[in-house]
Amino acid sequence: MRVSELVRRTGTPLATVKFYLREGLLPAGRATAATQADYTEEHVRRIAVIRALSDVAGLPLAKIKAILAVIDSPGDDLFAALGAAVGALPPYPSPEDPDLPRARAAVDRLGLQWDPDYAATAQLERALAAAEAAGLPISDERLAVYGRVLGELAEYDIAGLPPAGGQAVEYAVLGTALYEPVLLALRRLAHHHLLVERTGAAASD
Amino acid sequence: MRVSELVRRTGTPLATVKFYLREGLLPAGRATAATQADYTEEHVRRIAVIRALSDVAGLPLAKIKAILAVIDSPGDDLFAALGAAVGALPPYPSPEDPDLPRARAAVDRLGLQWDPDYAATAQLERALAAAEAAGLPISDERLAVYGRVLGELAEYDIAGLPPAGGQAVEYAVLGTALYEPVLLALRRLAHHHLLVERTGAAASD
Repeated sequence: MRVSELVRRTGTPLATVKFYLREGLLPAGRATAATQADYTEEHVRRIAVIRALSDVAGLPLAKIKAILAVIDSPGDDLFAALGAAVGALPPYPSPEDPDLPRARAAVDRLGLQWDPDYAATAQLERALAAAEAAGLPISDERLAVYGRVLGELAEYDIAGLPPAGGQAVEYAVLGTALYEPVLLALRRLAHHHLLVERTGAAASD
Repeated sequence: MRVSELVRRTGTPLATVKFYLREGLLPAGRATAATQADYTEEHVRRIAVIRALSDVAGLPLAKIKAILAVIDSPGDDLFAALGAAVGALPPYPSPEDPDLPRARAAVDRLGLQWDPDYAATAQLERALAAAEAAGLPISDERLAVYGRVLGELAEYDIAGLPPAGGQAVEYAVLGTALYEPVLLALRRLAHHHLLVERTGAAASD
């Protein structure tokens, strides 16, 4: 398809498509003339992935590049791919966090593998430290509930992982980044639902 | 305390503290001389909240202002306060989303209250549409699992809500924004843990 069709199909302005091409986020189309190129369904989907990571997951351009690089060269190591992808997700580590005492205590308490080099370990430290500093520390009881519930959810995710290979990497990487906003929206909706029930507030319908 | 002590206690540069004061995120200290002011523990905590919302939750300044305004003038309506706070969280609605067909189907399927004006409804629509466009649509089975698990988690959250009043609002607002990064980090760690188990990869310790 022509670039104009790509613009129409994805609802993405031409200037944005050109920007993605220039930044190497979107592979060039097959040249059909000096000033024309042919684009495929893969280009349509790649633009959707970029916009999902940017507009919905809220990732900065450099982090989107890192995630796309993992998908494009998945290698055989699902483990390393997941690590690289999670490292591209917020919260981004602070140079002020050399130690991980809160994460260490939480991981031990939940019986999870301790891997200080896996990005989510520092992310947990930052998240726990921030809640604590704001005056709402996570209690041991809350940690136990959250750990159990999220563990159950992760088991479902991993059980549905395709067999090892490029597809598994893409599913693990995009599933982590793109399903998170779904999970957060569902929690926010469940809070609202329970408050409606509790307060007897009228629901609009 | 003096501003130098506030800088030391919060680990926040003086220029940043002055910026927060100028932007009205941080209330002015009590003037003790023409060029000196006295700050309290409330200032220390407010800076921690701002930094948690900014550095960890990743919110832009305008959204942090909106959340602090809810906390500072909570009113009696916990419901309205939660709505305003959730509206300040990403993903931010797109003017291209006038309809909410995916959110409507998901909310009906999960038996939740339908409230198109609650921000999380449009956030769910965006998140579902993005996953779909990227080629990883949320299946009905996955939605049922996620909905059940997140519902369980929300029940725990709401059960621990302080009685109505300013404290309940602050807990609901900050708990929503600050516990989300904890939840996401725990899911990422659980994925890693399960992959270690599955692949028999050596864990560092």
